[in-house]
Amino acid sequence: MTQSLHKRVTIVGGGMIKFGELYEKSLEDMIEEAYLNALSRVDKGIDPKDIQAAWYGTVYPEMGNSGLGLSHATGLFDIPVTRIENACATGSDTFRNACMAVAAGVYDVALVVGAEKMHDDPGGLIQRADLKRLWMGRGVTMPAFFGLHGTAYMHKYGVTREQVALVSVKNHHNGSLYPYAHLRFECSVEDVVKAAYVSYPLGLYDCCPVTDGAAVLIITNPKIANRYTDTPVYVLGSGLATDSDLRGGDLTSFPATQFAAKQAFEMAGLKSSEIDVAEIHDCFSITELVSYEDLGFAKPGHGPELLEEGIVSLDGKMPVNPSGGLLAKGHPLGATGVAQLVELYEQLRGEAGAVQVKNPEIALQHNIGIGRYATGSVGCVHILGR
Amino acid sequence: MTQSLHKRVTIVGGGMIKFGELYEKSLEDMIEEAYLNALSRVDKGIDPKDIQAAWYGTVYPEMGNSGLGLSHATGLFDIPVTRIENACATGSDTFRNACMAVAAGVYDVALVVGAEKMHDDPGGLIQRADLKRLWMGRGVTMPAFFGLHGTAYMHKYGVTREQVALVSVKNHHNGSLYPYAHLRFECSVEDVVKAAYVSYPLGLYDCCPVTDGAAVLIITNPKIANRYTDTPVYVLGSGLATDSDLRGGDLTSFPATQFAAKQAFEMAGLKSSEIDVAEIHDCFSITELVSYEDLGFAKPGHGPELLEEGIVSLDGKMPVNPSGGLLAKGHPLGATGVAQLVELYEQLRGEAGAVQVKNPEIALQHNIGIGRYATGSVGCVHILGR
Repeated sequence: MTQSLHKRVTIVGGGMIKFGELYEKSLEDMIEEAYLNALSRVDKGIDPKDIQAAWYGTVYPEMGNSGLGLSHATGLFDIPVTRIENACATGSDTFRNACMAVAAGVYDVALVVGAEKMHDDPGGLIQRADLKRLWMGRGVTMPAFFGLHGTAYMHKYGVTREQVALVSVKNHHNGSLYPYAHLRFECSVEDVVKAAYVSYPLGLYDCCPVTDGAAVLIITNPKIANRYTDTPVYVLGSGLATDSDLRGGDLTSFPATQFAAKQAFEMAGLKSSEIDVAEIHDCFSITELVSYEDLGFAKPGHGPELLEEGIVSLDGKMPVNPSGGLLAKGHPLGATGVAQLVELYEQLRGEAGAVQVKNPEIALQHNIGIGRYATGSVGCVHILGR
Repeated sequence: MTQSLHKRVTIVGGGMIKFGELYEKSLEDMIEEAYLNALSRVDKGIDPKDIQAAWYGTVYPEMGNSGLGLSHATGLFDIPVTRIENACATGSDTFRNACMAVAAGVYDVALVVGAEKMHDDPGGLIQRADLKRLWMGRGVTMPAFFGLHGTAYMHKYGVTREQVALVSVKNHHNGSLYPYAHLRFECSVEDVVKAAYVSYPLGLYDCCPVTDGAAVLIITNPKIANRYTDTPVYVLGSGLATDSDLRGGDLTSFPATQFAAKQAFEMAGLKSSEIDVAEIHDCFSITELVSYEDLGFAKPGHGPELLEEGIVSLDGKMPVNPSGGLLAKGHPLGATGVAQLVELYEQLRGEAGAVQVKNPEIALQHNIGIGRYATGSVGCVHILGR
């Protein structure tokens, strides 16, 4: 008897900052800039007083930074601010919780903020965060973990190193065109496979950089969306799931993605073949390949064909990561999911500039997250439509 | 045009563990115990498979512990798990977000978990968490901060040290009767005022202990509550607000509580005089006094009268903190708000044993939280009814 979120929430504004190594900006500086950017891009304008509640996704800050940090950055006091943390899926789940509050009718206008200052942490956020993990404290770092997935995938399906590299080539090409991306250069298959290994089979260009960034969305009840824009974007589906590799599995899929996708597609009443453009979690090249299959875009072992046939290229049938993805745009944990949604909001409105894909109507956003015990322990999927 | 949460969510089960210095239990051990306790106390029983989503409030753990930690502790995999962090109001806001998802109709049955292993952190969680703060890194620790509030309050209103101590005397009396409380002993006004000062005017018995604990609630759509119980408890109102002392103020009130209370009372359609029993945030004795006034139970400066006249005693007109409050029950940050709600669920159903108050119909729960810049920077209030 549950109700879906289908078309019960609209996005009416979105903005982000140029991702990068932003040593000169505080977390609050980044949020302020993304927030002002988002406000300024609401078609009919918006009074900040209209914002009734906020959700703030960030992984790193210690307790209590949440509400106040956001309030100081935006000038929004007195309203409710909830911090969400869900590993690398933090931004996605922040959006999801805000959507449910709007769908419940408790708020008509809500702010969704994702931000992460990865460079504020000595030694690197990801490195530090891992030391308490069961495996990672023993040397199985993020690249090592995903390297295991890479080796298993290549071995099981006879996929070559060069085929995996195609993800990096595509995403760096897109990132070179996307003004908000952290890394804006192209690379060839040769560049990728000859680069220094970080953890076999993953080389330097197979790994996302350490990036600072912030992104903001403004969401509303669809009934009042026309106060702000005549071309809102609708939330069609949403899914989140938790899983553990400790339950088994052969490292060539992330079941949490599969569960989350099932929820989102059911809500949306859509099939994977109906997606026109997607932002897929590519913290490492191999992650995008595996996720094609978990999301139903390719049968197991057939992910590389989407790249070889150009289906996921910027001018393909279903472009994936036109923004450059995590590999080129960067992966500031709390900001990542929100930034993916900002990008898809622009795509669906035909505002994506140099990376605009042709007339997309349905878009999919996807994150996975590392849990205490395993990679891919969290999966989150959203489906948006015009 | 927003809709209230009023009577759109029911609590059908709740449980917690005995709070204390639980060096022998992991975070997951504590969650498992509270979860099994909550399941076992659902009147008509519940199949764990009925639980469609979970919210997990915890402050301390590093990223990614959330979903998987909860799944491993409960055996609930595949479902969505969202971690909420909102400083000392973490448990309250976790409940609030779960309620909105149920009110949205996206889930019919949801799990709300709050847990904190304060003793897992060398040096103490609160101590460590503060080092990055603007003021606290300079020696203004939690007791020092609330001591400032105490001094300001006593000075402004001519309140004596002995009057402040009445909070501790009351709450320790209640805690001595409550089986789940961490500290189960009584103390006199003399004990309180003669105890070693932690930060003037706050002595040892004016400060909550460092406590480990976990608490769990099971909430549902009211339409299906009768599958689980014939005596559910309804959510009547909910409010959350953010504030900053940096905006001014004289330290004798927490505006975030006032804003949150306004939201909650408006939703509930009730006045403060209609509350029969309350769990109020008493991290320090002074906090409870100030909160009486922020919540509308007393006029500014008149908080001590509620204690002197016995109004807030266990057998008074509106008992406050029958569980012993944070001062005696303890304050495991993420668990605190959820445990307060578990206690009020029991009170409203007449199941609170030695601390049962007489036939309460309306209950109020309240937390404040420390932000990066100030005490009382987050306030959260819920109102429950039979």
